[in-house]
Amino acid sequence: MNKRMIRYIVGSIIMLEAALMLVPALTAVIYREGHCLAVFVGSALFCLAAGALLRGSRPENTTIFSAEGYVSVALCWLALSLCGAVPLYASGVLTNPFDAFFEIVSGFTTTGSSVMADVEAAPRAILMWRSFSHWVGGMGVLVFMLALLPLAGASSMHLMKAESPGPSVGKLVPKVRSSAKILYEIYFCMTAVMVVSLILSGCPVFDSINLAFATAGTGGFSVLNSSAASYNALTQWLLTIFMILFGVNFNVYFLFYVKKFREGLRCEEARVYFGIIGIATALISLNTYHTFRSAGLTVRHAAFQVASIITTTGFASVDFDLWPEFSREILVLLMFIGACAGSTGGGIKVSRICIMAKTVMKELAFILHPRNVRKIRFEGKTVEHEVMRSINVFLVAYLGIFVTSILILSLDNFDGVTNFSAVAAALNNVGPGLGMVGPTRNFAAYSDLSKLVLSLDMLAGRLEIFPMLVPAIYLLRRKQLG
Amino acid sequence: MNKRMIRYIVGSIIMLEAALMLVPALTAVIYREGHCLAVFVGSALFCLAAGALLRGSRPENTTIFSAEGYVSVALCWLALSLCGAVPLYASGVLTNPFDAFFEIVSGFTTTGSSVMADVEAAPRAILMWRSFSHWVGGMGVLVFMLALLPLAGASSMHLMKAESPGPSVGKLVPKVRSSAKILYEIYFCMTAVMVVSLILSGCPVFDSINLAFATAGTGGFSVLNSSAASYNALTQWLLTIFMILFGVNFNVYFLFYVKKFREGLRCEEARVYFGIIGIATALISLNTYHTFRSAGLTVRHAAFQVASIITTTGFASVDFDLWPEFSREILVLLMFIGACAGSTGGGIKVSRICIMAKTVMKELAFILHPRNVRKIRFEGKTVEHEVMRSINVFLVAYLGIFVTSILILSLDNFDGVTNFSAVAAALNNVGPGLGMVGPTRNFAAYSDLSKLVLSLDMLAGRLEIFPMLVPAIYLLRRKQLG
Repeated sequence: MNKRMIRYIVGSIIMLEAALMLVPALTAVIYREGHCLAVFVGSALFCLAAGALLRGSRPENTTIFSAEGYVSVALCWLALSLCGAVPLYASGVLTNPFDAFFEIVSGFTTTGSSVMADVEAAPRAILMWRSFSHWVGGMGVLVFMLALLPLAGASSMHLMKAESPGPSVGKLVPKVRSSAKILYEIYFCMTAVMVVSLILSGCPVFDSINLAFATAGTGGFSVLNSSAASYNALTQWLLTIFMILFGVNFNVYFLFYVKKFREGLRCEEARVYFGIIGIATALISLNTYHTFRSAGLTVRHAAFQVASIITTTGFASVDFDLWPEFSREILVLLMFIGACAGSTGGGIKVSRICIMAKTVMKELAFILHPRNVRKIRFEGKTVEHEVMRSINVFLVAYLGIFVTSILILSLDNFDGVTNFSAVAAALNNVGPGLGMVGPTRNFAAYSDLSKLVLSLDMLAGRLEIFPMLVPAIYLLRRKQLG
Repeated sequence: MNKRMIRYIVGSIIMLEAALMLVPALTAVIYREGHCLAVFVGSALFCLAAGALLRGSRPENTTIFSAEGYVSVALCWLALSLCGAVPLYASGVLTNPFDAFFEIVSGFTTTGSSVMADVEAAPRAILMWRSFSHWVGGMGVLVFMLALLPLAGASSMHLMKAESPGPSVGKLVPKVRSSAKILYEIYFCMTAVMVVSLILSGCPVFDSINLAFATAGTGGFSVLNSSAASYNALTQWLLTIFMILFGVNFNVYFLFYVKKFREGLRCEEARVYFGIIGIATALISLNTYHTFRSAGLTVRHAAFQVASIITTTGFASVDFDLWPEFSREILVLLMFIGACAGSTGGGIKVSRICIMAKTVMKELAFILHPRNVRKIRFEGKTVEHEVMRSINVFLVAYLGIFVTSILILSLDNFDGVTNFSAVAAALNNVGPGLGMVGPTRNFAAYSDLSKLVLSLDMLAGRLEIFPMLVPAIYLLRRKQLG
């Protein structure tokens, strides 16, 4: 392990976070929140000092391998979250350090699960920090790339492999840095367009900026206690559309950017993703029509909730915990499916689901026609054995973490639906669950142990499981050795 | 498709079922249940006629391949269940044909989920038929083998592959028939020993025979409304021990039979299985101690429930639906783990869980030490790629059926815990679930559609998914072609 280099990377990230804190500090200036200004400036100085101390001078050997890649990614996200929790705790908004950690992990991992019962009572600078953490976390991959590429040339592929959401990133162009920059531009532009659209739809400016940050990162923190329920119909439709757009594989936008429109439109994952959204919206509309008694209202709320959950954003335009069981269970299913690989969304990812379904179809075809075996194809290419193996291992590790987390949460003795949906919401980076963690409630009732487990689940979900497991195994082995 | 041969096999099985009905008929004679005697004799004659009609003369071409193997296994179990439901319906005990089908599918698949609210009111011949169906179903594999081997020589391996529980059967000895016969003898002897032990422990003779049938098949139908709660401590301990023994991989007993004691004791799957039982019993004892306030009582009920659920038998000595959430969720987890491969139990199987866990550990080791790749070993042998692929495909298909079933059940608008545990109990062939399908309740409240889905889940679980999917895909493709 090149520990010097890992320290250097983690230290750099903490120093970068100091710069990020200028955004909420500026918000505090604008809204004359003097206390918050002091908190954020103080926190930024703390990050600067701690980061510099950890980072030290540039190491001579900058080579890192996949093990170091996984470990530094995990440590970076942990460090970002620990330091990011400081202003939440120091401002007095969250008085339990576990709550502050949970809340900001939920921010950076773009989950959107909250322990705050009354967000409207919180200072605007704090709300801005929460929403901004979604935006930063959502494209954490690229922030990382841009921050780290000047340091480590070829080894950055290892970081990308460890952190990118889904099995397909890394294909884009051989030069990782330039493609990361392009994705970053696309992300920035889409966010800007969204802010303007929301303002034009009649949404207040502060809300528009926060909603756009939370949507771009598929996070889901809101600045109102009612989430997105009190915005007008146009604003809600805009949110729905942008949530769906931010859940599309960014490969598609990249292809559009380099003017390969036909290739972009041919993206198999995006087609399946839109198909699932269409079918789920139709089924939920039919199932909930009797509660709304208006086709327009029904479709608007059905589409909003479907978009919110499949992209793992987690806004709510109605309390879907009160919906009939069929609709509730479709939403839970969408939590697991998640968005496209290579988007800012979480979950298992549509591409993985497609490939898994195809393995079953292939097995059945093999039993019926043993002599006529065809390879599995996805996005027009043969799926390599290595990819299928990694998907299978992902699924098993995912289920293992899922089950373990539920067992630990159950020590709090809440009901099964609450525990199951809480872990599903955390591990898939969705936000709200059902029951006691439904869209109108929050995660505050859980014990500190459960909050810690859920925080780690959010990180595991965001980093696609393995970067979180590797450091744990590494430490365990070191201990065994002595 | 060699349809002649499939018809011959299915017809033979139905004729065999006529002979099986003599057991409840005899019970009706002993307990002077004239009506039931008429019903069972009538049903047996019906089976004899229907079977003979379907079977026809022995086909000239007896060769069958894996596709035919899968299709005939699925059709045999369906036919067994359809004909087996006749006496339940004809006797007037179950007035809804879907209920009768559900109940006997639950019997033959050794599930033990019931739609009968008051079993004590049912005639003894009917109770015997239910318990006996567990015993027949439990070693269905071997019944099949013994019935079919005189017909089809080499092709019987295909049937065995399609039907045997778990990835490990077929290893035993090259001569399938003789090994099936040995397993059948072991099964018969263990059942006999169990009947005698139960009677000696003070359990009534009728109950002892029924409990032994239900335990040997890891089924779980009881002859009392309170399941196993009202038996004395000794009887409950005997049930616990025998449930655990019938969940062990029969390879172990086979090795003991051929005097390879050391090899038998080295069985990795059995060791893990006993380890899980020990840990689960300890955790549940700690978690439920406050409800019993006596160490002996706590351990007895914890061990009983753990043994009952992990072996997928499904007896209950207490209403575990009232236990703390942690214990409830451990039991749900045990439902999924299931018993050993090559036993009469259901679930995913301990061996599959072991191999899946090992793939994750291997992946982590690979990330840490990319140059030092070792193959996965289980039971002292390298796990072949083919086995891992089939386990992964099994897991995906299993999850797909699980999710689809829950969605259909949710149309009845019961709560999530009830739906989830109902499907878990059916697909893993356990019996009772939680909530509205808890150990003191039954499945009667579900709609006919849900009962049908659960019946198919039980069959899919018993036949390890694929034999149920192949005929469906075959029919679908034929329809597409013409």
